[in-house]
Amino acid sequence: MNSRKAFLPPRRILMGPGPSDVATRVLEAMARPTIGHLDPDFIFLMDHIKAQLQYAFRTANPLTMPVSGPGTAGMESCIANLVEPGDVIVVCQNGVFGGRLKAMAVRCGATVVHVEDEWGRAVSPSGLESALRSNPAASVVAFVQAETSTGALSDAAALAKVAERYECLTIVDAVTSLGGSPLEVDAWGLDAVYSGTQKCLSCAPGLSPITMSDRAMARVAHRRTPVQSWFMDVNLVTGYWGSGTQRSYHHTAPINALYGLNEALLMLQEEGLLAAWARHKQNHLALKAGLEVLGLEFVAPRSERLPQLNAVRVPDEINEARVRQRLLEEYSLEIGAGLGALAGKVWRIGLMGYSSRRENIMACLSALGQVLTYEGLCVSATEAQAEADRALRQPTLP
Amino acid sequence: MNSRKAFLPPRRILMGPGPSDVATRVLEAMARPTIGHLDPDFIFLMDHIKAQLQYAFRTANPLTMPVSGPGTAGMESCIANLVEPGDVIVVCQNGVFGGRLKAMAVRCGATVVHVEDEWGRAVSPSGLESALRSNPAASVVAFVQAETSTGALSDAAALAKVAERYECLTIVDAVTSLGGSPLEVDAWGLDAVYSGTQKCLSCAPGLSPITMSDRAMARVAHRRTPVQSWFMDVNLVTGYWGSGTQRSYHHTAPINALYGLNEALLMLQEEGLLAAWARHKQNHLALKAGLEVLGLEFVAPRSERLPQLNAVRVPDEINEARVRQRLLEEYSLEIGAGLGALAGKVWRIGLMGYSSRRENIMACLSALGQVLTYEGLCVSATEAQAEADRALRQPTLP
Repeated sequence: MNSRKAFLPPRRILMGPGPSDVATRVLEAMARPTIGHLDPDFIFLMDHIKAQLQYAFRTANPLTMPVSGPGTAGMESCIANLVEPGDVIVVCQNGVFGGRLKAMAVRCGATVVHVEDEWGRAVSPSGLESALRSNPAASVVAFVQAETSTGALSDAAALAKVAERYECLTIVDAVTSLGGSPLEVDAWGLDAVYSGTQKCLSCAPGLSPITMSDRAMARVAHRRTPVQSWFMDVNLVTGYWGSGTQRSYHHTAPINALYGLNEALLMLQEEGLLAAWARHKQNHLALKAGLEVLGLEFVAPRSERLPQLNAVRVPDEINEARVRQRLLEEYSLEIGAGLGALAGKVWRIGLMGYSSRRENIMACLSALGQVLTYEGLCVSATEAQAEADRALRQPTLP
Repeated sequence: MNSRKAFLPPRRILMGPGPSDVATRVLEAMARPTIGHLDPDFIFLMDHIKAQLQYAFRTANPLTMPVSGPGTAGMESCIANLVEPGDVIVVCQNGVFGGRLKAMAVRCGATVVHVEDEWGRAVSPSGLESALRSNPAASVVAFVQAETSTGALSDAAALAKVAERYECLTIVDAVTSLGGSPLEVDAWGLDAVYSGTQKCLSCAPGLSPITMSDRAMARVAHRRTPVQSWFMDVNLVTGYWGSGTQRSYHHTAPINALYGLNEALLMLQEEGLLAAWARHKQNHLALKAGLEVLGLEFVAPRSERLPQLNAVRVPDEINEARVRQRLLEEYSLEIGAGLGALAGKVWRIGLMGYSSRRENIMACLSALGQVLTYEGLCVSATEAQAEADRALRQPTLP
């Protein structure tokens, strides 16, 4: 790249753990003229985005908005607002992101009760229950609904029920589930849920939609100590993202990124949330059928699999990094590597949002089958695609 | 706005305190296809952005990068990394943003020595010196070089010299100065400097370029306690934004926003940093000449004025909000209101980055002159423009 020339990115097929493919209309929305963040037209847009996020989260929570930072900032916003020094918080970990929740809670001065489940498995409600039984002082339970590092889907409704029995608030990581698989914030009684825009919403990365229940907001209002982060303090942020035409300045929102989010949420509304969930499910089954023909095994057992993130074990004697590199260089196809304990052992193949399309499934099976053949495995890309095609012809699941 | 229709923002002339007008080529850059944040092409772009930010900050600091959040996140990143519980920090306040620095330092557990200067005036080096003399335990000095709330420019070089004599690190707010007026991170010995992208760099808002000296990084490395924010901890962030091709995942960078920043930094390189400073200065003098013909007085004295942010007092008996509203509705021109102690008393007229152009000066003087006439003042927009035109014909200042 010449230092005096524009950066012209290659066109990729994004089938890693995120970002996912961004639709042209979302890209174009981000290129519309920037306006002021206190402009009446922008305030109107903020309200519209909030309403659309309520639709996506299935919630009526007034505090439903995008944090002006990536998913990691949304995660820390939930922890920093709901946890204070001396609190006891139960953190369930079954992958990388549960570990991150734990690290953040420790930095907020909490005593963390760590409940571990096997990587690649769902979080066990009975494990959570026994931790709560032995830690009656616990006031918050945090867990990851959709573990992007392993492809495991946990039963958020069941976990929230256990937490409620012990009068704990729940903090839920829905980074990879929002817009892609069932998430019912109100029906399941979740208290603080955060997500990202670059997964099943298929926006550019950089924003973190969050929602907090009235119970959670009451907890924040009655804190003994100020929220340790001024930037993330929802007491201050709500003055900016709150309702009415009078907004108090807190920071400057990322205007153009929000144009993109608005357009992506519009696409979700046009398709319908339930239809989007069904599409992710069906496309997952098709990809799975093809991957199995290629001899690849899933990390998570069938009933605990995230449809939008397919983590499969790398076959013995295959150089996993070289396969990814060839896919990128020769097919302009990105798939993800393993993270943490699974580094070097798995591939993570995303079918998220706008990436969850028939042509991507076929391109992936074709390219992966071809590269695995070059690398010495005896597999048939053609058969894998035929199997996927068959799965796609099945009637859509409810 | 129909809830099922795209958001089509109006085209504004942005002459408030930011965001400033974003050039079409920067908007277009943000609409390029999203690629993965660990893609070799993206890592190349990260390195390129870091080098261009070093150019803009006039520094060789290896830690020079955009924080994935707005200027407020950059401010808190500097405070949270360099301040820990029990530290004594001197915060100079001469406007809204000094107050914010103080609030953040308190939330990091610091004891804050508060040095106040009049709003609209520069920070006084002698005031800082006497605070340091009486507080020998102080280890950090924080101040705002360019107070966006008042239009006052402080002498960062002089303040840094005082701080150095007392062996204090400096945290400097350069949100509104970077790319618009002299800022010499290395020559002045500044330790932690943060900025925003929506001011004189004329990108969309949402990123905060920061730079930290080796001295500052050594301080972070020898902290007694972990940085309280996991998201902002530079020990972790440098693994992601650091050098070499091996980057460790920390969060997902806002890819498309960074395409825009890269393009804006390219524009700065094409013009040349010193030429950009000179343009801001000359355009300020032209606008000032015109505003004075309209009878408007500056808040800051001549030698303490920020060229890119012109804060002028609202004339008696003028309804300041109505004037701004008319400018927006009838001329699609945005200027800023007062903040904090100056709310309702001043207008803040920005000439930042791509907004700092001849046609904007003329449009502003014409519209403002017209509206003030409608509101009952006896002023001449034509004369104001002629005066500005005369100033623009003066030879460029060094």
